[in-house]
Amino acid sequence: MNSEIKDLKLSKAGLEKIEWADRGMPVVAMIREELKKTKPLKKVKVAACLHVTSETANLMRTLKDAGADVKLCASNPLSTQDDVAASLVKDFGLEVFAVRGINRDGYYRHIRKSLFHSPHITMDDGADLVSLIHQNGSVSEQPRGGTEETTTGVIRLRSLAACGRLKYPIIAINDADTKHLFDNRYGTGQSTIDGILRATNVLLAGKNFVVCGYGWCGRGVASRARGMGAQVIVAEVDAVRALEAVMDGFRVMALKDAAKIGDIFVTVTGDTTVLGQSHFPLMKDGAILANSGHFDVEIDLKALRRLAKSVRPTRPMVEEYSLRNNRRLYVLGQGRLVNLACAEGHPPTVMDMSFANQALSVVYLTRQAGKLPKDVAPVPREIDQRVARLKLKTLGISIDQLSAEQKKYLASWELGT
Amino acid sequence: MNSEIKDLKLSKAGLEKIEWADRGMPVVAMIREELKKTKPLKKVKVAACLHVTSETANLMRTLKDAGADVKLCASNPLSTQDDVAASLVKDFGLEVFAVRGINRDGYYRHIRKSLFHSPHITMDDGADLVSLIHQNGSVSEQPRGGTEETTTGVIRLRSLAACGRLKYPIIAINDADTKHLFDNRYGTGQSTIDGILRATNVLLAGKNFVVCGYGWCGRGVASRARGMGAQVIVAEVDAVRALEAVMDGFRVMALKDAAKIGDIFVTVTGDTTVLGQSHFPLMKDGAILANSGHFDVEIDLKALRRLAKSVRPTRPMVEEYSLRNNRRLYVLGQGRLVNLACAEGHPPTVMDMSFANQALSVVYLTRQAGKLPKDVAPVPREIDQRVARLKLKTLGISIDQLSAEQKKYLASWELGT
Amino acid sequence: MNSEIKDLKLSKAGLEKIEWADRGMPVVAMIREELKKTKPLKKVKVAACLHVTSETANLMRTLKDAGADVKLCASNPLSTQDDVAASLVKDFGLEVFAVRGINRDGYYRHIRKSLFHSPHITMDDGADLVSLIHQNGSVSEQPRGGTEETTTGVIRLRSLAACGRLKYPIIAINDADTKHLFDNRYGTGQSTIDGILRATNVLLAGKNFVVCGYGWCGRGVASRARGMGAQVIVAEVDAVRALEAVMDGFRVMALKDAAKIGDIFVTVTGDTTVLGQSHFPLMKDGAILANSGHFDVEIDLKALRRLAKSVRPTRPMVEEYSLRNNRRLYVLGQGRLVNLACAEGHPPTVMDMSFANQALSVVYLTRQAGKLPKDVAPVPREIDQRVARLKLKTLGISIDQLSAEQKKYLASWELGT
Amino acid sequence: MNSEIKDLKLSKAGLEKIEWADRGMPVVAMIREELKKTKPLKKVKVAACLHVTSETANLMRTLKDAGADVKLCASNPLSTQDDVAASLVKDFGLEVFAVRGINRDGYYRHIRKSLFHSPHITMDDGADLVSLIHQNGSVSEQPRGGTEETTTGVIRLRSLAACGRLKYPIIAINDADTKHLFDNRYGTGQSTIDGILRATNVLLAGKNFVVCGYGWCGRGVASRARGMGAQVIVAEVDAVRALEAVMDGFRVMALKDAAKIGDIFVTVTGDTTVLGQSHFPLMKDGAILANSGHFDVEIDLKALRRLAKSVRPTRPMVEEYSLRNNRRLYVLGQGRLVNLACAEGHPPTVMDMSFANQALSVVYLTRQAGKLPKDVAPVPREIDQRVARLKLKTLGISIDQLSAEQKKYLASWELGT
Repeated sequence: MNSEIKDLKLSKAGLEKIEWADRGMPVVAMIREELKKTKPLKKVKVAACLHVTSETANLMRTLKDAGADVKLCASNPLSTQDDVAASLVKDFGLEVFAVRGINRDGYYRHIRKSLFHSPHITMDDGADLVSLIHQNGSVSEQPRGGTEETTTGVIRLRSLAACGRLKYPIIAINDADTKHLFDNRYGTGQSTIDGILRATNVLLAGKNFVVCGYGWCGRGVASRARGMGAQVIVAEVDAVRALEAVMDGFRVMALKDAAKIGDIFVTVTGDTTVLGQSHFPLMKDGAILANSGHFDVEIDLKALRRLAKSVRPTRPMVEEYSLRNNRRLYVLGQGRLVNLACAEGHPPTVMDMSFANQALSVVYLTRQAGKLPKDVAPVPREIDQRVARLKLKTLGISIDQLSAEQKKYLASWELGT
Repeated sequence: MNSEIKDLKLSKAGLEKIEWADRGMPVVAMIREELKKTKPLKKVKVAACLHVTSETANLMRTLKDAGADVKLCASNPLSTQDDVAASLVKDFGLEVFAVRGINRDGYYRHIRKSLFHSPHITMDDGADLVSLIHQNGSVSEQPRGGTEETTTGVIRLRSLAACGRLKYPIIAINDADTKHLFDNRYGTGQSTIDGILRATNVLLAGKNFVVCGYGWCGRGVASRARGMGAQVIVAEVDAVRALEAVMDGFRVMALKDAAKIGDIFVTVTGDTTVLGQSHFPLMKDGAILANSGHFDVEIDLKALRRLAKSVRPTRPMVEEYSLRNNRRLYVLGQGRLVNLACAEGHPPTVMDMSFANQALSVVYLTRQAGKLPKDVAPVPREIDQRVARLKLKTLGISIDQLSAEQKKYLASWELGT
Repeated sequence: MNSEIKDLKLSKAGLEKIEWADRGMPVVAMIREELKKTKPLKKVKVAACLHVTSETANLMRTLKDAGADVKLCASNPLSTQDDVAASLVKDFGLEVFAVRGINRDGYYRHIRKSLFHSPHITMDDGADLVSLIHQNGSVSEQPRGGTEETTTGVIRLRSLAACGRLKYPIIAINDADTKHLFDNRYGTGQSTIDGILRATNVLLAGKNFVVCGYGWCGRGVASRARGMGAQVIVAEVDAVRALEAVMDGFRVMALKDAAKIGDIFVTVTGDTTVLGQSHFPLMKDGAILANSGHFDVEIDLKALRRLAKSVRPTRPMVEEYSLRNNRRLYVLGQGRLVNLACAEGHPPTVMDMSFANQALSVVYLTRQAGKLPKDVAPVPREIDQRVARLKLKTLGISIDQLSAEQKKYLASWELGT
Repeated sequence: MNSEIKDLKLSKAGLEKIEWADRGMPVVAMIREELKKTKPLKKVKVAACLHVTSETANLMRTLKDAGADVKLCASNPLSTQDDVAASLVKDFGLEVFAVRGINRDGYYRHIRKSLFHSPHITMDDGADLVSLIHQNGSVSEQPRGGTEETTTGVIRLRSLAACGRLKYPIIAINDADTKHLFDNRYGTGQSTIDGILRATNVLLAGKNFVVCGYGWCGRGVASRARGMGAQVIVAEVDAVRALEAVMDGFRVMALKDAAKIGDIFVTVTGDTTVLGQSHFPLMKDGAILANSGHFDVEIDLKALRRLAKSVRPTRPMVEEYSLRNNRRLYVLGQGRLVNLACAEGHPPTVMDMSFANQALSVVYLTRQAGKLPKDVAPVPREIDQRVARLKLKTLGISIDQLSAEQKKYLASWELGT
């Protein structure tokens, strides 16, 4: 086989995880059943650079069942579940290039390998595939289209498109309502808390919990931290969002002030150096630092290391930085996505909707090949709505429909008062 | 004087209300101080059809101080504060046409009077002025521009613009972040609860509280009702919003199911006949019905009257409908906006931001006269941001700025991983 | 008639209020139906010193229907609803001594009048009747027993009993689970918010809301204020309660620190001079002060007046104190119970349980006359449980019963592991 | 050595855990420093049957440093942390009898071994030591006193004392305010959620989460589940508590109704067979069952096994029961305490207070030896208050003191109105 994984013998545990996740992903399962019959991805080559988790596995199965030829690599060296990778190779016949904890060289080798078949469709979680394709001439033929899962990746791709350099159309999965309204808020919200608890077992009740960034992810984290009894402080650079945080009942302040009183800090901004050398020396002894933004640049660990007398592991995934001022700061998961590094990432239920959009968007890109502009495009509204309706169905919830009279009222301007 | 108000002698109480509101509207006050000096609205004729409340009074003062010639009429016969109207005439020299509880004829006469000077700028809260201008040829000259405060009005105007019939540019105040993210959510949220409590004094804790519609207003109402201990049920026709409500921890169901268990119902959809003849007979004895949507069409009172053996007032603003099934339903404020009919509308702090956008948009429309397309346009982003920054300033909150490095990171696609 | 009330002609509005409240008091109604048949209070003379509200009216009706000879006076000069008093006299044939806003002399004259028939049973809300009886020899014969509604009153009576000077047995209604767990928490919680909103119409979202005291009432107020989006700060003198507030997610600090940042202050401690001369000068311009504790001693208004350049009313029930430091503080309802002075007191649903305990306790005291020690006693557990069961029944909620096996398990120590 | 543990070589990881926990237990650390100097437990023999976790380790160190001769065994076969046990033996010189997952025989052998030195003081978490001492004559001499940590244990001991058979005084640690108000509510609340997330990674938002029992633990679990976005349903047999749950905004219903709609069930009642054969067949496919009550009797696993076609593990700590109706139920941690079986038990911060009470109570029992009645007694109020004050100090929070005037007011009955 061509795959590079940790150990094929781990496949049994991986299969159990994949099946467990499948129980939480009924929408993807319904779509899989359909695509299995219609095979719309027959002979379509797909390269996917995603977190190699049990939920991703169910997306990959779906593309395979739809007829695609899939290569999968990891979008983050720390998030790979080696047993899931093993099962994907053994039980589902995919090519996988992913080993948990691999070094930088291995990480990029894996990404390159996933492009060896010169894919028709790329699937990204942080724009690594598309970046490589743009920089290197690493493929013999331009892909027909691609998908991008994250806010961070979409920002990068929009920047590329804005200067006219994007070479093929990308669908911004992240912008689907059924993705970003759920994944970023409820998924990141819960799994960030989960990661912090698994890593530290600290009581959140009564703690000063500082959330840096009040986008969809930050709202989710802030809401769940408050739900666990924490006293949440929000730091935000956008004035409107800062006001929303105030009205939502949170304290809002500049980070240099929050740094002095926070017990736990979570960065979730999509930007770089959010917590840096000007903040660390202000922090209390025992402060805990975690990142839930896509890249591990939000906490400036280089600066922290410079400020530290010593660094040592204390618990798994917790490193203690002893500063020269004799205070100790604890960094979780090496500043990488705390929900993936210290917990299991988004719960299957949330990924169900993101990945339903992914699967349907790959089919859409295949059908529309050549017709779409070289730009970042939203998930088609029909797909987004379909995913929402399927999800409600699986929850056993029925909702009202607008009556003809109500539709007419909404469309009319003469009525009223 | 040309004004039509209840009684000029009420002005003292009105002035006290206006001053009290002014204390809660520091952003409008800061803008007023500036416009007073620069007089950008000198000789500009303005017709405003807004809820005649103490907060609106402070907006009107601001336009006057900026040099405008202002006529004000009421956008809802039940929301007028007669003492405020009196003070606006006596203490601030405005022309006002508004009497609380006036009948339909009087209401439209007032609207027409406010147009007698053929205004340069119209200000609407439900599109009544602009509707009249479009239907009647009621003005000698087209206005240069207008503003619209509400979601409902914007829907009507977009519908008009879509068929090419909008005769002058309108700025959708409602779409400003500093308006709809705050006014609709926090303002409507609190004041709806306030209206229900003043009208009924029922304990919300433990009650089944049904919110019809999960837009910004519905979210606000649902969140506050839960904050008071109610068990909130959401009814919504949009699948994505329905899913959000589920994930936010609310029960979601079709109205025919909610009708059977609700203790309190609030409609806040912007649509018609949300609660109608198919729901009333299902409701429990003692159920309370209130509307927080703009128009009084959301609860079908005609149908309810048909189903009733008798109707009688019980408390001020509470009417008891005794149905043939011997159950009694209680309608608050005649199905009109419960926060205005039974309480005092949005608190000044919230209106501060909406009305700061209004004042700055009127200045903008004046400056851009003739240059804007005949369409519904958003509040310019500079105005929106300026309002947010001023508001944070008045709250004594300082927030971080992006560093040069952070701006560069956000704009760049090569960085990362 | 012997009654002293404002105006008998107000009775119609009062009757409507009483009937409205009755709809929210189904437990008292069920008890009334029963007592009406059995007449256990025949020839029993009752003096009641309670807030003269529509809910109290339904308790008084119940005692009357049970056969009692009832005289009612007001326990607070500002809480009397004159129309309810009128209806009690006219429609229900009670003797009532209560006029809203009466001066101190009138207030005590009313209390004395309610004792003219030398009652068998006293009912207090703040221990005024029992105090008078103990101080003055104002009755010809010792009562057989009494009830006390409030925490504050119970503290006073325990103090009296502790030194052996209590002359007759008192049942501490406040200590019933079905009273203090509901009335103090949910009733005071909601109605305090209600009073503040009616008095001021301020937006609570984003405000620093300082709750002084974290007993049952304080918890209720803090919880509801947070539910409306406020940022709640708790001040408390008991270390355990202070810790609970921290773990419940509230900021906790000494009042001298909270004074500097609070936008709204609510005292709810049962103690005196909680906010005093050391705090007022620290407060921000525009700060709002309200009391929800029983007596109007929690905010030291004498000290505030000494510190003020001027005092003037702004809105009904809001007085502006302009301090020498040019900051303005706003006191609601003259520092009296804000939920009664500015709103309508506890909602009927809550009073339903308190007053069910009252009615059943009066019957109990009558039956046990002469057998009870001269002490403060709890509501008998049978009464408390019966009230809870009746209340669940009226809510349509059924709960599980312990199985025989489960009862045995709980009673046994040999089982386990 | 006499100890029976898994492997002494695990001690390094154990020591790291103990030190990590110590950072979260500053109150115990302060007490340890003091007792180390005064040695009040010199020559005192202690037998402790507690969960062998890193927090317990810090309590044991404290007793050792105070001079005691300590033997420790496990109070639950699944909660033992083998590495912590190893470190206690190697680094702190204790005798420990505890191996994770040991069978029933081994479990009781360990308990008996901890009694070999005929202890002066017993420390229990579920009354196992005291039960054995009462049943077997397993000690040569009666202990002078004992402590009991849990609600469940206290119920058993009260039952024993009530029939006059308790042989020595026991202090009910659980009844200290600084224990049960914090440990049961905030500790069990968070750690139950933590256990469920680690075991399943399910999204809680939008799930029907059924909490069986609304005591302190149940409140904590319900509150945190709601904080994570779940729709919480409460089942409770006590009418007053059921009403509280309603007013706190939860749905309340009998278990036979909740069984049909729940996605997740948590038992936390202290009673037996809460979920049993009448409930399992009603449950939805995929329902998750967890227990957070002390003993593993709350979910009737025997009945569940009888109803199942097959049982198999799916994830670690998750067993799938396939029922004859083809629905699958998932039991976490074999129905044992989910927070210990699937997570790490209470966070150190919470145990800090419980264990501060334990340490000070052991000293108290030693000093009062022979003077206390053979009954279950509360933690002395001085100890409780001292723990609260120390805890606030470690949080950096200062609170107000009552003034002389305020104390006098509270103690007086003449003042008021």
